[in-house]
Amino acid sequence: MSLGWEDLRETIGARIRAREWPPGALIPAEAQLAADYGVARATVNRALQSLAEDGVIERRKRAGTRVAELPARRARLEIPVIRLEVEGRGAAYGFRVTHDAEEPLPAEIAQRMRLAEGAPLRHLTTLHLADGAPHAHEDRWLNMAALPQAADFAGLSVNEWLVAHVPFQGGDLAFLAAPAGAAEAAALEVAPGAALLVTERVTFGPEGGITHVLLWHRPGHRVETTL
Amino acid sequence: MSLGWEDLRETIGARIRAREWPPGALIPAEAQLAADYGVARATVNRALQSLAEDGVIERRKRAGTRVAELPARRARLEIPVIRLEVEGRGAAYGFRVTHDAEEPLPAEIAQRMRLAEGAPLRHLTTLHLADGAPHAHEDRWLNMAALPQAADFAGLSVNEWLVAHVPFQGGDLAFLAAPAGAAEAAALEVAPGAALLVTERVTFGPEGGITHVLLWHRPGHRVETTL
Repeated sequence: MSLGWEDLRETIGARIRAREWPPGALIPAEAQLAADYGVARATVNRALQSLAEDGVIERRKRAGTRVAELPARRARLEIPVIRLEVEGRGAAYGFRVTHDAEEPLPAEIAQRMRLAEGAPLRHLTTLHLADGAPHAHEDRWLNMAALPQAADFAGLSVNEWLVAHVPFQGGDLAFLAAPAGAAEAAALEVAPGAALLVTERVTFGPEGGITHVLLWHRPGHRVETTL
Repeated sequence: MSLGWEDLRETIGARIRAREWPPGALIPAEAQLAADYGVARATVNRALQSLAEDGVIERRKRAGTRVAELPARRARLEIPVIRLEVEGRGAAYGFRVTHDAEEPLPAEIAQRMRLAEGAPLRHLTTLHLADGAPHAHEDRWLNMAALPQAADFAGLSVNEWLVAHVPFQGGDLAFLAAPAGAAEAAALEVAPGAALLVTERVTFGPEGGITHVLLWHRPGHRVETTL
């Protein structure tokens, strides 16, 4: 049986890791690899594409394929629905909407959402609970005009409602650390100034920013992935 | 000209986003899609695989392919060599090794590296500089026995030397926030207790843990990616 592209990817990756082809080296042409391994050229192409996506090799039209000098290390991050994250730790999920009003969009958030400063947006804060204890404090601006249908947040947290109902087009994600302000400290029951991991997320739909979320996690929270 | 798999992926993705196939809906079989779009079944398969990798659809043998109920949102994170990160911001990179000794591996790090507690490992701390000012404080444990060749950290930071010289097999990555301890505060010239973004990384080679790194970033540092 001939190799599949995943097998070929693994085989070529092993030769690169073994330094048979060191960083910067040109690796054989697709046609040559196809002949060497007795596979279709499309299979070779797919395997090389995957290695290139992972930053292991660099492909240039005409110049050929080289082993990367500084192989990029890329990780995939899964952004969970908070309910599933809490349940995944064996805790019961709950949430409490602690603020819900239409307010003018602050300048900094407007810039990140690519919307006009002062535009009236829905501003919600939500406390996410794990077994009844604070898990994360969410501060969200929501562009109701960008939603494809009437929103109903009675049964689902806004987080989950959006994931389930709003087509996903793209967005920005950032991790930062910040000291708990008065609101976050009160919500999460920690001392003001406590070092908290914050994720900032903006998602965009076909007509611009849909939502901006700051998620303040309890001290000790880790976002984990594998390389 | 017939569609490539990327085009087909985009087309099917658009139909899903338009709710033609809502969350949970079964989508047509590969053979049907191949006939509908006049493409090879392998092309359909590749497009569906890509959508499945991104959590848009769920494929089950025999049961067919469904639109995900809660589409996972996945991001790719690129882990840069610190020199390139600093230079990418238009600053001059520099580094200073502030500690370098063989020491017994602490229990917590040993567990993360899957090595024996108390094993003698090289312990290095490095201050990474941007235009001469502190950028990040690195606390690293390095398993010299796992290195494929004699290491020379004179010209390159350990970070860059490893990326360039040590075959990459896999690892764990975490983001967390922590208050600056005395060592971090002194190195980064911030007040003790300042909220800092920390990345923890362990990389593994064929024979186990190669290195464990805690990277303490200056206040305000953001790790950014797109969705």
